[in-house]
Amino acid sequence: MGMPLELNTMIVTKGREKRVEENVFLLEKEGYRLYPIEIPIDVRKTMDSDSSGTALIKKVEWQNNTTTLTYQLVSLNSTN
Amino acid sequence: MGMPLELNTMIVTKGREKRVEENVFLLEKEGYRLYPIEIPIDVRKTMDSDSSGTALIKKVEWQNNTTTLTYQLVSLNSTN
Amino acid sequence: MGMPLELNTMIVTKGREKRVEENVFLLEKEGYRLYPIEIPIDVRKTMDSDSSGTALIKKVEWQNNTTTLTYQLVSLNSTN
Amino acid sequence: MGMPLELNTMIVTKGREKRVEENVFLLEKEGYRLYPIEIPIDVRKTMDSDSSGTALIKKVEWQNNTTTLTYQLVSLNSTN
Repeated sequence: MGMPLELNTMIVTKGREKRVEENVFLLEKEGYRLYPIEIPIDVRKTMDSDSSGTALIKKVEWQNNTTTLTYQLVSLNSTN
Repeated sequence: MGMPLELNTMIVTKGREKRVEENVFLLEKEGYRLYPIEIPIDVRKTMDSDSSGTALIKKVEWQNNTTTLTYQLVSLNSTN
Repeated sequence: MGMPLELNTMIVTKGREKRVEENVFLLEKEGYRLYPIEIPIDVRKTMDSDSSGTALIKKVEWQNNTTTLTYQLVSLNSTN
Repeated sequence: MGMPLELNTMIVTKGREKRVEENVFLLEKEGYRLYPIEIPIDVRKTMDSDSSGTALIKKVEWQNNTTTLTYQLVSLNSTN
């Protein structure tokens, strides 16, 4: 037995984030995932894409085999 | 740097749990704590007291340096 | 991506432990597993068997998708 | 109770790494620390310095309130 977890060191959005405020987004991921909270973390659209910015995770919620992140974008990488 | 975490293998209520439903309780703990979710876990009033029952944690929430647990008591140890 | 982990709250030996000293055992488990270290933890032969004793994990090693535990049995449950 | 852990998303050497092979280093850190293993991770000399390269952690060992990492440098940032 035991509880499966995944340790994550970046946020991969797959374009599924939902804006809740100016710079604050909600993202649901499958399974129970461990993310550093209140520590600058890379945000990417896919695992292999370039960094699209840096975020601070403000809230992590585990329930029903789902992890829900609330994160605040603190810097954005221009892609021009 | 890094994110301080505490790995917990039992729920220690210190009598601060709040009943939200028949067998479902909410408990706030200081700091970010890692608990097994959906796995039977001992519930105790204090760290050194006997087990008062067994619970399943249904939800774990991390925010503002606080961990909020929602757990369901699945068995109760009689203390008579 | 991310690193798969399993949070464990007991030691399940499946009879594969190797004695290295009087009360000290070595156990290899597949994958990367998180166990509480230096905290009393239940030892069982199988997931569903009764507790065979209590141990303190003294060392955890992760390498090549394997977790190697060194634990000290601190009490033994008689099964007579 | 519970087991204090620290979730780390980069390797901060403070110049204390020891070379064991061509690109392989050993580093001891105080306390029990959780690092992603076999996943590219930033290496820095101090928390605030620029990245000095990227490594793959090959082995993590917890014992006596110490974490010992074995990591392989996979790329080096020139600082000229």
